[in-house]
Amino acid sequence: MSADEQAIRSAVETWMRASARGDLPRVLELMDDDVVFIAPGRPPTRGKSAFTEAAKAMEGKVRFEGVSDIQEIRVFGDWAYVWTQLSITVRPTDGAASTRRSGPGLSLWRKKPDGVWVIFRDANMVTEEKTAEDAKIAE
Amino acid sequence: MSADEQAIRSAVETWMRASARGDLPRVLELMDDDVVFIAPGRPPTRGKSAFTEAAKAMEGKVRFEGVSDIQEIRVFGDWAYVWTQLSITVRPTDGAASTRRSGPGLSLWRKKPDGVWVIFRDANMVTEEKTAEDAKIAE
Repeated sequence: MSADEQAIRSAVETWMRASARGDLPRVLELMDDDVVFIAPGRPPTRGKSAFTEAAKAMEGKVRFEGVSDIQEIRVFGDWAYVWTQLSITVRPTDGAASTRRSGPGLSLWRKKPDGVWVIFRDANMVTEEKTAEDAKIAE
Repeated sequence: MSADEQAIRSAVETWMRASARGDLPRVLELMDDDVVFIAPGRPPTRGKSAFTEAAKAMEGKVRFEGVSDIQEIRVFGDWAYVWTQLSITVRPTDGAASTRRSGPGLSLWRKKPDGVWVIFRDANMVTEEKTAEDAKIAE
């Protein structure tokens, strides 16, 4: 495994752990100022400041605990992509029932002049998992 | 605009037109043998042969007419990514009502040794558009 691939894997791990403990400043260090988050059914979140605003609105309300199971990483010089499979538990801090979400992600990363890899474009295809109870209601 | 960016834009256009007229062989020329199609809520479609099988199952039943409004292209040597906004009309050939789907796509492309750009990874976040009638039913 190349040093760049290792650095990106480590950044993904750091993201998941920082996110689980609600460490927004650490999460923000892992993204480019001009990052764009792309997802189905809503407009893209453009830029670190827009992400920060959205994250602050949820701060202290929920925790995102999960794993990112990397399927593939390819590095092209100072750019790379990561295809991953995410499994997330969304845990409200008020003790309400947690929900499970899962699905793939495809992201572009860039290596900054200081050698740090940051996320640049992120396509998030995580959806809520249907429980046995949901399936029953839908019948 | 670089020659590579121009070639990728042209490939995206060709894809949309070939897809609209049901020209599967032309669509297949635009993808890598090891292409992977990634989407929310279903397993990835791995490889050109799996795509072909899925496409043949729908052949003659529906047409996908639409536009791909490219938001961004970045080329890194023989690799590139494309972020686009798709608007698709799915038109059943038996005359049944057509449906509208829209949403973003994020794809990785590679330049083959013969100079032809092909799609390599594709994250498709297109979802069905809610009509005024759907909204009423949901109330």
